[in-house]
Amino acid sequence: MGTIFESFLGSAACDTHFSASGFVGAMLKFEAALAQAQAQRGEISQDAALAITRVCEQALEQGWIDAQEIAKASSTSGSVAIPMVAGLKDILAQRHPSAAPFAHRGATSQDVIDTALVLGIKEVVQLVMQDVRLCVASLRSHATAHLDTPVLARTLMQPASVTSVGMKCAQWLLPLERSLASLDQIAPNAWVLQLAGAVGTRAQLGPQADQIVALMAKQLGLGIASGWHTQRDHLGRLAAELALVSAALAKIGGDVLLMSQFEIGEVAEPHEPGRGTSSAMPHKQNPVASIAAQAAHLQVAGIMSTLSLAMVHPLERAAGQWQAELVAWPRLLAAVHASSSAMAGMLPGLVIKRERMAENIAALANQVDDQTARDWFDPQLAQVAGHEAAKMLAMGNT
Amino acid sequence: MGTIFESFLGSAACDTHFSASGFVGAMLKFEAALAQAQAQRGEISQDAALAITRVCEQALEQGWIDAQEIAKASSTSGSVAIPMVAGLKDILAQRHPSAAPFAHRGATSQDVIDTALVLGIKEVVQLVMQDVRLCVASLRSHATAHLDTPVLARTLMQPASVTSVGMKCAQWLLPLERSLASLDQIAPNAWVLQLAGAVGTRAQLGPQADQIVALMAKQLGLGIASGWHTQRDHLGRLAAELALVSAALAKIGGDVLLMSQFEIGEVAEPHEPGRGTSSAMPHKQNPVASIAAQAAHLQVAGIMSTLSLAMVHPLERAAGQWQAELVAWPRLLAAVHASSSAMAGMLPGLVIKRERMAENIAALANQVDDQTARDWFDPQLAQVAGHEAAKMLAMGNT
Amino acid sequence: MGTIFESFLGSAACDTHFSASGFVGAMLKFEAALAQAQAQRGEISQDAALAITRVCEQALEQGWIDAQEIAKASSTSGSVAIPMVAGLKDILAQRHPSAAPFAHRGATSQDVIDTALVLGIKEVVQLVMQDVRLCVASLRSHATAHLDTPVLARTLMQPASVTSVGMKCAQWLLPLERSLASLDQIAPNAWVLQLAGAVGTRAQLGPQADQIVALMAKQLGLGIASGWHTQRDHLGRLAAELALVSAALAKIGGDVLLMSQFEIGEVAEPHEPGRGTSSAMPHKQNPVASIAAQAAHLQVAGIMSTLSLAMVHPLERAAGQWQAELVAWPRLLAAVHASSSAMAGMLPGLVIKRERMAENIAALANQVDDQTARDWFDPQLAQVAGHEAAKMLAMGNT
Amino acid sequence: MGTIFESFLGSAACDTHFSASGFVGAMLKFEAALAQAQAQRGEISQDAALAITRVCEQALEQGWIDAQEIAKASSTSGSVAIPMVAGLKDILAQRHPSAAPFAHRGATSQDVIDTALVLGIKEVVQLVMQDVRLCVASLRSHATAHLDTPVLARTLMQPASVTSVGMKCAQWLLPLERSLASLDQIAPNAWVLQLAGAVGTRAQLGPQADQIVALMAKQLGLGIASGWHTQRDHLGRLAAELALVSAALAKIGGDVLLMSQFEIGEVAEPHEPGRGTSSAMPHKQNPVASIAAQAAHLQVAGIMSTLSLAMVHPLERAAGQWQAELVAWPRLLAAVHASSSAMAGMLPGLVIKRERMAENIAALANQVDDQTARDWFDPQLAQVAGHEAAKMLAMGNT
Repeated sequence: MGTIFESFLGSAACDTHFSASGFVGAMLKFEAALAQAQAQRGEISQDAALAITRVCEQALEQGWIDAQEIAKASSTSGSVAIPMVAGLKDILAQRHPSAAPFAHRGATSQDVIDTALVLGIKEVVQLVMQDVRLCVASLRSHATAHLDTPVLARTLMQPASVTSVGMKCAQWLLPLERSLASLDQIAPNAWVLQLAGAVGTRAQLGPQADQIVALMAKQLGLGIASGWHTQRDHLGRLAAELALVSAALAKIGGDVLLMSQFEIGEVAEPHEPGRGTSSAMPHKQNPVASIAAQAAHLQVAGIMSTLSLAMVHPLERAAGQWQAELVAWPRLLAAVHASSSAMAGMLPGLVIKRERMAENIAALANQVDDQTARDWFDPQLAQVAGHEAAKMLAMGNT
Repeated sequence: MGTIFESFLGSAACDTHFSASGFVGAMLKFEAALAQAQAQRGEISQDAALAITRVCEQALEQGWIDAQEIAKASSTSGSVAIPMVAGLKDILAQRHPSAAPFAHRGATSQDVIDTALVLGIKEVVQLVMQDVRLCVASLRSHATAHLDTPVLARTLMQPASVTSVGMKCAQWLLPLERSLASLDQIAPNAWVLQLAGAVGTRAQLGPQADQIVALMAKQLGLGIASGWHTQRDHLGRLAAELALVSAALAKIGGDVLLMSQFEIGEVAEPHEPGRGTSSAMPHKQNPVASIAAQAAHLQVAGIMSTLSLAMVHPLERAAGQWQAELVAWPRLLAAVHASSSAMAGMLPGLVIKRERMAENIAALANQVDDQTARDWFDPQLAQVAGHEAAKMLAMGNT
Repeated sequence: MGTIFESFLGSAACDTHFSASGFVGAMLKFEAALAQAQAQRGEISQDAALAITRVCEQALEQGWIDAQEIAKASSTSGSVAIPMVAGLKDILAQRHPSAAPFAHRGATSQDVIDTALVLGIKEVVQLVMQDVRLCVASLRSHATAHLDTPVLARTLMQPASVTSVGMKCAQWLLPLERSLASLDQIAPNAWVLQLAGAVGTRAQLGPQADQIVALMAKQLGLGIASGWHTQRDHLGRLAAELALVSAALAKIGGDVLLMSQFEIGEVAEPHEPGRGTSSAMPHKQNPVASIAAQAAHLQVAGIMSTLSLAMVHPLERAAGQWQAELVAWPRLLAAVHASSSAMAGMLPGLVIKRERMAENIAALANQVDDQTARDWFDPQLAQVAGHEAAKMLAMGNT
Repeated sequence: MGTIFESFLGSAACDTHFSASGFVGAMLKFEAALAQAQAQRGEISQDAALAITRVCEQALEQGWIDAQEIAKASSTSGSVAIPMVAGLKDILAQRHPSAAPFAHRGATSQDVIDTALVLGIKEVVQLVMQDVRLCVASLRSHATAHLDTPVLARTLMQPASVTSVGMKCAQWLLPLERSLASLDQIAPNAWVLQLAGAVGTRAQLGPQADQIVALMAKQLGLGIASGWHTQRDHLGRLAAELALVSAALAKIGGDVLLMSQFEIGEVAEPHEPGRGTSSAMPHKQNPVASIAAQAAHLQVAGIMSTLSLAMVHPLERAAGQWQAELVAWPRLLAAVHASSSAMAGMLPGLVIKRERMAENIAALANQVDDQTARDWFDPQLAQVAGHEAAKMLAMGNT
């Protein structure tokens, strides 16, 4: 579960997939799939594959492999796969000695780890996408309900003119819709098997490497790719798109924070028991989802810097960069998922205060000269905004 | 031209488009296109449009507008568009007084600046793409010529086995090919006109806003979009792809640095007069293109962090974030273009030292036991690598 | 323990202090110290203080408070202190009802959390400093033993001339010594109590606030300060110094990686069972400590970007920035501690290969003309380097 | 002058010192000081030193050296010092042939460039410190004038209780005062001569290296240090402190932005002709100084990430990292100086609206129950805050 602060800015799904037991479990799935594929192509015996599969399936449950011990051992070996493979071979040597030499055959640490990484990424990204779809749906619903509800538009933090709630919602949701479309397209390129052997040439995998890759990929629910040990662009592109999701959510959260200030009071996060109370001040109601989206994006921005550099893998395997990437990915996923789930939980209940919006416009119009009031603070301007927003929403993510 | 260091890590094209005169020129093109489109739709008179266009075309050349003065004035107004528009109206008031009220009609500062920004980005990104195509072509050529030339594969900075030069080239070039394909697809989404009026609703543009947008976009060679003042995802996606290009080039440059170490000596940057000499040591030959790619990517990583946060624009226009984005974009472009042009200049002449590669393999095989030598350091392993690389190259960017 | 990768790039001490139970424990220490100080100054009764102290001391052990539940509850309350205070008051209400109203009196969430944060930071930074002292000591020892041992100096990754191992060690260790001196000076400024009340004015703490602060600070082993809810510079300065430590260690690790390449072979990480082996290649010996230092610093660089922004706390308490800071700090500490402990474990046993260094110089001298060989690659140059290094080492961190 | 956006977010002083001509001028000062010091110690003749000095002093003015050409040449040589030294020797060869061999004697590119870098840094940092002193003075003055003026304290963007303007000012200024004290102490450690010769051993500088260093340092107004080619911590510490200054200014600017929102209206940036007007909306008054501080800090955060990594210089001279550091430093200085000068220009005239502050408190007190109003929104609470602020201000930066 990480540090205590990762409860506020974390993801239970991330914890599951990237905990010692979750990740060792995913690595064992890789080893089982590899053995099965090799048996299917006649590279190893069916008996060996069966033995390996059984051990992989039961190792954690039966306590044959202690995931925490593997995690600890990684600090001297420099890799979580090395103690896992050693552990697997030890158990096989005890229980199915003839199968032991056939485990992890032709594969390398990075094959196992990258594949397990991708399996975890896929699970969490799908949850993020689900959240984002919820956000989009509730924003579209707010937009329809308030298409031409007048509200102050503020530029450089100062009231500038009148827009509509529908237009605000359109500006909020269109980037999310585009990110969904982009994720649909690019994420599968990253959700691919890694199987390239010791130095990325597949030399230890034999002439049937392509067939083994195809079988394993199918078994694991991943796509097929040639070896990509040092080609991190698909992962980098996915990370960048997740950062765009985080930015779009932070924009919404930031606007909610500003618009729900007491003196402005145009929106509010939904009131729920225990949500956003204060330890000292009974009158406080804090916008916690919006705060989470801000805090998440501050992490994401730093992680993008780390990942940009960590994706440069020297020679045939990186000495530091890859390891940094592995640490950074679950943090990226946790931040983005924390943000998406907080916002997906909040946006459907977002309170939109039409009267307060109208009062704020009127208060401002009172303070400027008549001409300015007519030109810039006429609530009728919301009709134009609503009309434009309707067009934007109809075009959708194009 | 920026600081003296931006000659090594900069881009003349960037200097041209984002200098005071280049950028003011682009803003004036926006104003001319706006006036022409509005005249074509009968919103303003043809005479006014003609007068505005003439002034916009001649203002810099004739010295009516001093780009440096506009740059300076931006520090009090907080925007380069405000003094530009003021200057334009002043000249019109002097030379074509009846046209003056019709300049910049319905538009806002951000419309002008975002459009001029996009125009500059488009120019520089096209140059980067041209460089990347050159890099890809020369790497494909090296890959073909050395498809199965044996060379040590090194993981975690230690020799691990034998691969082939063709495989190294394939690993280098495939991410660049994918980035080219991605840029072809996503860059046009960012190369779009910005015209949304004071608060992004197009309220000041009248009922023919869509037609005006279409005419202007065509005139300026940009795509059509609804207003995107606070929707920065298309720009963010483009920035991220440029960062992937930079990372891919840094990977190549980093490998060239490592492989051209004296004791390894497997490749060398091309020898050219003045290239990489030393002020103190006559025997030195420094790999300057590779160094530029490293230095560029270190900038890019930091800029990605800035841009990730700066793309979160509060309310209807950002108070700080947008301005930070404007500063960061030319720096991103300059770094990526510096890297791409250095690498495009170097890669065609990259010296590949086949004999030295063979010697290094032999030297290593001599140091390990016979079994290890046969299993891991047999030059024949390069054949398998070459075969795999050929498949990877044939599949291309898929 | 966080994700599985945080075993390689983590810190058990960090896990201890920033886990749910570790951090709740530290928060309870704050509450106990507050009650005791308030009783000592007559603000609350001794009985109440005794009851509060007993509950705080036993709450976790007795299972009255479930730290995991508090962590979970923080995701709706937006703060780990709020459910902790609620839990504490509930237990008191059950066990010592008359004391319940006197717990957390005058304090606010941020007081508790910032103080507990600082307590954890102090523990981990002291461990880092201990590691760094070990690094410095072993580098000084290597420097003495090899003060004028000749070794190639390489600039821009190419051999440039001859220096000495002593000089290399001096360049490595001096920044670490300066960081130790700087930490001695600045860290105590960050290790201070936070007690400022709801909005940082100490209004709820009564006229004896200064005395209560002094008593609490003494009890908790922290320094005294006025409220610093939004003044994050002492923490920022400490973070920056830790980043310098990380950079200095990454420099050493990076040089070790380069110098221990097979073809160069001038140094090696110590050989120990299980250290740096490969899952596929029996001949491999990977420099895991140096890799850890690289991977750590890549995290640190991104975290510095997050912390730079997260230290800007709007108004009287940040809505997102503070929460981001809380997430980022344990990650910074874990990375720096992972790096320092890896390097402190490795450097004493660093293998320095004097003969190989001499061979590399000779091999190079053979390849250049006689004049260059005499001017630049005479092993005698190491004497000058050693002499200069001795002066540098004698001056120490000044 | 860099890109047009660097007028808003730049520094004329930075332009001066880091432009091609400014930086070449500083490098020529280094060469003159080196020759003079060497002559004074009898290492070269007084005639040679005189000839070198004259050429260095007049080269730019007389057009003997074209700084722009040197900048351009650096893109092939990879260093701005190499073409400068070549140019200097060419002119000497023409005008004082006997002196030519004695220019740049014993020095290396990095000596010249690092020294010129430090000379520029020193100039700009001194200007920043001057600005910060102005900010502190005007904030202290506002604090005194409004020590216990009641104003709402807002936590998590929601009103929480009452504080005082004096307390707000204290929170704003104390970090700046501490940064000034820190800069006084640490900046001189970075403002030191670099003179270490080709590989940092001073081998080419002869037995009087220390004396030459002392003479040169005095001449150039810099401190004395042993060679620090790869020891970047003093620069890194200075960069980090500048980032703290930027953060402290961004905090103030951010609060001003929030408090000067129309609906809150408690402060305003001073009204001056041309300041913060809008191209479209005559009623707008934009807080440009505060915006500049935000935009600057967003740059700074990314640059800190770049600098953290770029300060890790492999072996005896970095291949990419150093070059990245050179590009990043002027950008850091420009951002921080832009922020400090904007804020120093704004803060003395900051409009503090006491009545509006009182109205906001009253409006809130009206909305909560009587008990809450008495406990949390009694304007008398400002007295306690003012008293506490007075103590904080009296203790100053301790």
